[in-house]
Amino acid sequence: MRDFLPADKARRERVLAVIRERYRAHGFDEIETPVMEEYSRLHAGLGGDNEKLSFSILKRGMNAEAIRAAADDPAALTDLGLRYDLTVPLARFYATNRAQLPTVFRAIQMAPVWRAERPQKGRYRQFMQCDIDIIGDASARAEAELMTASLDVLDALGLEGGSIRVNDRRVLDAMLDVFGFVVEERPGVLITIDKLDKIGPSGVVAELRDRGATTGAVDALAAYLDRPSSAPSFDEAGIRAALPTGIPDEVIAHLVALGETVAAARGADAPLVFDPFLVRGMGYYTGTIFELAHPSVDYSLGGGGRYDGMIGRFLGQDVPAVGFSIGFERIVDLLQDAADTGERSVVLVHDRDVPLSTLLALKTALIAQGVRVRVEQRAKNMKALLERSAADGYASFASVGVDTTAESLELRPLN
Amino acid sequence: MRDFLPADKARRERVLAVIRERYRAHGFDEIETPVMEEYSRLHAGLGGDNEKLSFSILKRGMNAEAIRAAADDPAALTDLGLRYDLTVPLARFYATNRAQLPTVFRAIQMAPVWRAERPQKGRYRQFMQCDIDIIGDASARAEAELMTASLDVLDALGLEGGSIRVNDRRVLDAMLDVFGFVVEERPGVLITIDKLDKIGPSGVVAELRDRGATTGAVDALAAYLDRPSSAPSFDEAGIRAALPTGIPDEVIAHLVALGETVAAARGADAPLVFDPFLVRGMGYYTGTIFELAHPSVDYSLGGGGRYDGMIGRFLGQDVPAVGFSIGFERIVDLLQDAADTGERSVVLVHDRDVPLSTLLALKTALIAQGVRVRVEQRAKNMKALLERSAADGYASFASVGVDTTAESLELRPLN
Repeated sequence: MRDFLPADKARRERVLAVIRERYRAHGFDEIETPVMEEYSRLHAGLGGDNEKLSFSILKRGMNAEAIRAAADDPAALTDLGLRYDLTVPLARFYATNRAQLPTVFRAIQMAPVWRAERPQKGRYRQFMQCDIDIIGDASARAEAELMTASLDVLDALGLEGGSIRVNDRRVLDAMLDVFGFVVEERPGVLITIDKLDKIGPSGVVAELRDRGATTGAVDALAAYLDRPSSAPSFDEAGIRAALPTGIPDEVIAHLVALGETVAAARGADAPLVFDPFLVRGMGYYTGTIFELAHPSVDYSLGGGGRYDGMIGRFLGQDVPAVGFSIGFERIVDLLQDAADTGERSVVLVHDRDVPLSTLLALKTALIAQGVRVRVEQRAKNMKALLERSAADGYASFASVGVDTTAESLELRPLN
Repeated sequence: MRDFLPADKARRERVLAVIRERYRAHGFDEIETPVMEEYSRLHAGLGGDNEKLSFSILKRGMNAEAIRAAADDPAALTDLGLRYDLTVPLARFYATNRAQLPTVFRAIQMAPVWRAERPQKGRYRQFMQCDIDIIGDASARAEAELMTASLDVLDALGLEGGSIRVNDRRVLDAMLDVFGFVVEERPGVLITIDKLDKIGPSGVVAELRDRGATTGAVDALAAYLDRPSSAPSFDEAGIRAALPTGIPDEVIAHLVALGETVAAARGADAPLVFDPFLVRGMGYYTGTIFELAHPSVDYSLGGGGRYDGMIGRFLGQDVPAVGFSIGFERIVDLLQDAADTGERSVVLVHDRDVPLSTLLALKTALIAQGVRVRVEQRAKNMKALLERSAADGYASFASVGVDTTAESLELRPLN
């Protein structure tokens, strides 16, 4: 877990404000849920491996006897936990508040989550997630809205040129079926295929053979991975050419509609890339899956997918849903050296004998002109004071003596 | 704990944005600390009654034996807790990061805190606090900056006419000494005096007699409460006239300097009210204490004070500090019926047969013009759809058929 000092915190808030503003423009509505959810809800099997990493709240007012009894049933020590993602809370929120929400509900959530990760570089126990989800729309419009809104966020942050890798869980299922993997082994096979970027086709084939996957199916997959290919165009011809025969028509139609819709919104060069081997980890995905990429980095800047089954677990009635989580922490890191915000700001450096009332009157006059103002007493080490002020984002400084007035104030640049 | 639906959440974020922008203009810098702090730090006696209300995190990976052993020492079940205020985390933050902060550090914190309150109207287990603190300035400039910034926040939220009740813990100490209360009974006497607004002078005197407070001292206090008085002017003559003799000169001088400084910033009618019986609950206050009031409500909209001793507990070296917590939740409630934000927005109501690509192209064109856009399919109950849209803050709607273009789109007001 981290403290955020002023410069970091200001950058984080600037990025959050852009994300919030752009997603709102695209018709999404921000909501907020409590950081704690019921223990049973957090451990219902929808959080995947994250369930094991969740922090639990100690039940209050337990006496010695109750604690002793809990030795054989540790779950009795807790009834609440900190959320480890924003998807499980969203499903619970939707089930609770559905009557007050529009038929097609477009949600923004920007909030911290907690996971008891082992401390390592780039992994934090508390970090921000920024999710958008559309609940109640089974058409490709939903995916297209998530994608165009998220590309717009990247553009607004100065990260133009983003693109999106797209696949569909049903494509993967159908391919594994076509190749001849039996149903029981498919989840394990997907875990191995998910490593394709890291270990390459030969690594995937070797690992599958090691695991004892159906030999003929591995041979078929190997042949398929081996064939010469270029990046398929994101239209019906391209998508069909990239796939073995036997993929259901409605799956291909959904992908084609998605491509056309994003193209209509973003112009002819819709930056979608069809990748039939994109897997994504979470078990709850049921349809389209996708990841946001940017040429400046070799990791994804977010990902999401369709999870039509999950809301039903809470609501007792199936509702289509699709979500996207933009990689806030990664994006903030990318923007470390973000350009000057153009904010007008000044540090008033005053002599010791300037009356407090003079200082505050000056400060107020400047604030009224739209200037951000910090007041500092003149220090022995003026160089350090001015460097500190520049590092904290101030653009100028001015000396204030006993006789200084708002009119006589002289602003000098800090850099 | 509460879910926040779109309209509520939008209002909360608007208020937060105003508070952040105004406090930043006044030279405060936002920081963020993790929601969890070490258990021992949260229970070091600085949180007053809130320590008892704190939520603890269950230690991970405890085996049956360790749990059984904890029956006699429940603190062994936890090593982290959720913060119950933002002051203890700030003191810890300052001790950790002091080398990277300016000599006079002006902090903004806007973040949730948690207390295991019994559920009742207006009390929540998770709620937002918005604190500003100035660390490293012993002069009245610090209090004056907190006050002028906070009055400016109220103004910016459309709550002009705010005022601030001011006292000093040292005034209370000196008064109790003058009246003849012995040192040991003074904390209890302050708790009773704190109820003056609720139970009146006769109630305070009766409760003190019931508690067996020193009779002569209660008589002296009773006589003092009984004398005819008008609101004292906030200058040396007014403050002295409102107090018994025997109050240290330097305490009065600090109050007078504060009044002059706020007057310089806010104009001649500085809205400060001296109230020698203002107490405020927390035990850590050492000097000035104050509460923000507004004519529209009979409860305070925030409060704060000087706590010069606390940072030293973490740092091993005394550092002056003063803080103010604006009543975010109360202010949001006050602004329930806040005026229209003037945001341009439209709901596109489309026929079923309009292609997704037409819809997204229209949506994108409007967003590029600075309009917030929601897309809805035409419903049987159009009245409900339009009412829902208006309730969600949309200002207009437009019908979209197969042939609609950005140019032929007709926006109609929703209200």
